[in-house]
Amino acid sequence: MRRWTIKDIAKQAGVSITTVSRVLNEKEEGMSPKTREKVLKVMEEVDFQPNQFARGLVTKRSKIFGLIIPNISNPYFPELCRGVEDEANEREYSLIICNSDDQSDKEKRYLRLLEEQQVDGIIFSAKDSLESSDEEQLSRAKIPFILVDRGKSEKNHSSVLLDNDKGGYLAGKHLTELGHRKIACIIGPKSISLTNDRLEGFRRALAESGVELSPSQIIEGDFQMEMAYQKSKDLLMKKEVTAIFAFNDVMAFGVYRMAHELGIHIPRDLSIVGFDDIPLVSALIPMLTTIRQDTYLMGREAVKLLIQKLENNETQSIMFNPTLVVRESSTSPKLLL
Amino acid sequence: MRRWTIKDIAKQAGVSITTVSRVLNEKEEGMSPKTREKVLKVMEEVDFQPNQFARGLVTKRSKIFGLIIPNISNPYFPELCRGVEDEANEREYSLIICNSDDQSDKEKRYLRLLEEQQVDGIIFSAKDSLESSDEEQLSRAKIPFILVDRGKSEKNHSSVLLDNDKGGYLAGKHLTELGHRKIACIIGPKSISLTNDRLEGFRRALAESGVELSPSQIIEGDFQMEMAYQKSKDLLMKKEVTAIFAFNDVMAFGVYRMAHELGIHIPRDLSIVGFDDIPLVSALIPMLTTIRQDTYLMGREAVKLLIQKLENNETQSIMFNPTLVVRESSTSPKLLL
Repeated sequence: MRRWTIKDIAKQAGVSITTVSRVLNEKEEGMSPKTREKVLKVMEEVDFQPNQFARGLVTKRSKIFGLIIPNISNPYFPELCRGVEDEANEREYSLIICNSDDQSDKEKRYLRLLEEQQVDGIIFSAKDSLESSDEEQLSRAKIPFILVDRGKSEKNHSSVLLDNDKGGYLAGKHLTELGHRKIACIIGPKSISLTNDRLEGFRRALAESGVELSPSQIIEGDFQMEMAYQKSKDLLMKKEVTAIFAFNDVMAFGVYRMAHELGIHIPRDLSIVGFDDIPLVSALIPMLTTIRQDTYLMGREAVKLLIQKLENNETQSIMFNPTLVVRESSTSPKLLL
Repeated sequence: MRRWTIKDIAKQAGVSITTVSRVLNEKEEGMSPKTREKVLKVMEEVDFQPNQFARGLVTKRSKIFGLIIPNISNPYFPELCRGVEDEANEREYSLIICNSDDQSDKEKRYLRLLEEQQVDGIIFSAKDSLESSDEEQLSRAKIPFILVDRGKSEKNHSSVLLDNDKGGYLAGKHLTELGHRKIACIIGPKSISLTNDRLEGFRRALAESGVELSPSQIIEGDFQMEMAYQKSKDLLMKKEVTAIFAFNDVMAFGVYRMAHELGIHIPRDLSIVGFDDIPLVSALIPMLTTIRQDTYLMGREAVKLLIQKLENNETQSIMFNPTLVVRESSTSPKLLL
């Protein structure tokens, strides 16, 4: 069967194309209820699917949001994406997904693509702060956006962020309270501000117990398992620390593997604390103590704020609170080194 | 700055709106190269972003694909999604993502939504076979589609599937060759055809070694960790089997946990084989032997076939081959029960 057009509907209902268009776009002031009823009835009878392009030309709304994340394969992001998509779907928005690999040129390309697709808003979980050229582009195209997970809370941006300083603090407090004094951390890339926020909180908690973090105890990772596995070797072989705080769970997985290979028992010989509480974290044996964030809810909240921005031009930011989840991978040190 | 329209470009270049539109939509036959050049130059100067709605009305192309999957939080799907998005992006398509939770009514709703968005094609990784009402809807809307991961290879559909029968066979062959005679399996939902394909291949391999699979050795799971963890308890406590084949890696994670709690050593007391080879599989200690599928490549291939369908109306199907990856979780049984 051929697809019904507005023209066909108009003919069938015995009204003008303009009338059908007004019904479609809910601009029915002055129209008789009977006429409106007639048009709607025909649409229903033929299961009419309005043409999004035609509707878009009138409403200037695509009912699509864009989500830019570094990489859906990183286990943090499926949860975020699911939260965003669920909320968007309930509000009758579709979601275009973009993987930027944290590369500035890919982000720019996606921004352009999303502008071409006339998205109604963009959820950014990709970079710390928008470059001014990107911001100009978005403002010229009048596309509202919101920062989630990555970035700094700023007055002129909506954002949904985690209190990363507090997360780092909770991890440090937990380990020092257990009696650890020699502690290392495997941090994320220094170029990402959440790394520095977590480190600052962690350092502060240690300082409160008189524990210092020397530069050799700060190891830069890339949030991937492989590098954490490789880089923890030296640290574990020297046996200079009794605890490690990994800045995400996936890097904690890498430390587990290296500890296993070197015959180091977790938690008897080594305590480990992760970050994120990704779903597969309970697969680790022993189960990982970690700093939990409500990633799924953050995704949902981001869409809510974006819609507020879109509909009421309200700029609003939410800071989520991380929590400590104590499981089996952290305990008091056997020896106080 | 105000957004440039086709009208502005026409005025600036001193040509008609039709001319600009023809350049935009690459219908430049009969146009002088000089005119074309002039229009392109103005567009470049003002960094012109064509309005997708206006372009869509002419080309009838949205340059968007839809991807329907059960759930991005299931660790199999981020890899698939990444493959799909990378290939789509290279071909200058955007990707709308939809989580159906394997619910028929959600799938129907997404189909309708994607039709409204005028997507150029749909990649389905959601159900075994399209209901005839869905197929009618897609064919009425002239939206080409392709089945990936789930479904049956059929003449009139394009599809990218795994040879699941072979995957099951490889797992069975590996375990019987190691000398296992008492083997159980934790399968996926029986309503999904790939479950039955894997089971059939597995059963055949066992039969070739004279090993029978009794109904009590076939445990139905849901591809999630929790249920596999719960349901493996009875099986492991009875100590009636020396090996378990889990129909995906995530369920193997659940068996690991239960074995750990019951003091059963892997692989000395129990061999385990998984399926998929998801990225986090190497986090398990000991590392999991599994049946690998090239999920990322399957995603890329699905987009290629969809574009062939779209551009040349070619229907084509590809069957991927699974491979056995032997790691540390499988060995010869200590006792031949």
